[in-house]
Amino acid sequence: MSETTHAPSRAWEWLGLKLVETGEGTAVVEMATTENMANHSGVVHGGMISTLADSAMGRSLRTLSPGVVRAMSFDLKLNFINAAKVGETLRATGHVIHAGRRTVVAECRVDGSDGRLVATASATFAVTRDKE
Amino acid sequence: MSETTHAPSRAWEWLGLKLVETGEGTAVVEMATTENMANHSGVVHGGMISTLADSAMGRSLRTLSPGVVRAMSFDLKLNFINAAKVGETLRATGHVIHAGRRTVVAECRVDGSDGRLVATASATFAVTRDKE
Amino acid sequence: MSETTHAPSRAWEWLGLKLVETGEGTAVVEMATTENMANHSGVVHGGMISTLADSAMGRSLRTLSPGVVRAMSFDLKLNFINAAKVGETLRATGHVIHAGRRTVVAECRVDGSDGRLVATASATFAVTRDKE
Amino acid sequence: MSETTHAPSRAWEWLGLKLVETGEGTAVVEMATTENMANHSGVVHGGMISTLADSAMGRSLRTLSPGVVRAMSFDLKLNFINAAKVGETLRATGHVIHAGRRTVVAECRVDGSDGRLVATASATFAVTRDKE
Repeated sequence: MSETTHAPSRAWEWLGLKLVETGEGTAVVEMATTENMANHSGVVHGGMISTLADSAMGRSLRTLSPGVVRAMSFDLKLNFINAAKVGETLRATGHVIHAGRRTVVAECRVDGSDGRLVATASATFAVTRDKE
Repeated sequence: MSETTHAPSRAWEWLGLKLVETGEGTAVVEMATTENMANHSGVVHGGMISTLADSAMGRSLRTLSPGVVRAMSFDLKLNFINAAKVGETLRATGHVIHAGRRTVVAECRVDGSDGRLVATASATFAVTRDKE
Repeated sequence: MSETTHAPSRAWEWLGLKLVETGEGTAVVEMATTENMANHSGVVHGGMISTLADSAMGRSLRTLSPGVVRAMSFDLKLNFINAAKVGETLRATGHVIHAGRRTVVAECRVDGSDGRLVATASATFAVTRDKE
Repeated sequence: MSETTHAPSRAWEWLGLKLVETGEGTAVVEMATTENMANHSGVVHGGMISTLADSAMGRSLRTLSPGVVRAMSFDLKLNFINAAKVGETLRATGHVIHAGRRTVVAECRVDGSDGRLVATASATFAVTRDKE
């Protein structure tokens, strides 16, 4: 795939998502949380963590071969474990656990900057893949 | 509850979330989507829809009596049905389906500006409630 | 579809699942719970409730037109609200909330014999549908 | 904990669930699937896989210290990956990923007899734990 394909989307830029690592079926994405992401309790809004996890899982699909040309998530399931503090950099590791021709299932864990578990997630994607 | 409690959080302001209606156990929240929310496919990032749904459900809890003093979502489950176009205003209707002393369960549907179903969601919250 | 298609499966017979009503995109299925379904706490095992919900949702798909020839659930999400007592008849109402050509999304609520909410569920199915 | 606590429940006996291994925060449970568990497509009903996963996760909680006296699952989330054939023995490995005083989160993978991934699951439990 070309670099163009992997240029950050508008949402990635806006949210400050950074791809820090990829492997076969895995992608690590970081988000430096900001005050804009604070909810009423003053911690990072669960939706932001959800966005990060969804992004890391979606990105992990792009490492598959034959390539994923088009992907749309169907469902997203999250467990929130520990609150994330505003200002800390969260690290999401997405990995594919099943890669079919039409559907891909991925899982993710989100860690805080001190390594504690912040959330886990999984998602199912409808995909179109390259012909081999 | 005081108005202070219900002032928009930083995240609500940043994302442009607006509370448009509340009832007993329900809250309707709107989000005018922007180009900043576009994913690689040019439609609204699933995480943004997830944030909206989480917000509407969290807000629906605040209408309960005895009041919810503190709430933290444990889990969040979403089904993405139809893509949301950048620029359209999404409307999320959250409602409580079970209100216990320590846990509250809520559901949500997110509609597009033309009324089509964009997503459904549910979430479980650990809560602390006022003494009666 | 022929009656043969809708003959109870082995699992339905074994578990005592009974189809009591269908409509367009909906199906109501009942299960008379037995002592065999008791978990350690003496209430109905969550897995049994999960089986009932999955069955009602799967059955609701069969009412669609063009017909669903083949269906496989991808994911299943449940919220357990109130415990179910051994001996009571549970009633699951499944309904389709999105019917695409390749995927169908359904929701379900499970009620106890006194009408209290026992569980809610949703599921995504990969389907093959009749040509129109 | 006494042996009594860990005697198989009625549901475990009926379904043929067998505890084959425990560790700190983990439990491995097997189920020899039978014809009674076949759905309309002739493969193992998703609800049965769900019951197995829920059981393994619930059992993994019982290995924690301070001990879990009482546990009730709130939510259950499953991804079905590959169909399970009637007659094969499924092996579910549940493990605790977060053990709080009031809530515990567990994950599970279910493998077929040939080691292929059949399903993944996660669940949140409301618990009462022993005083230390």
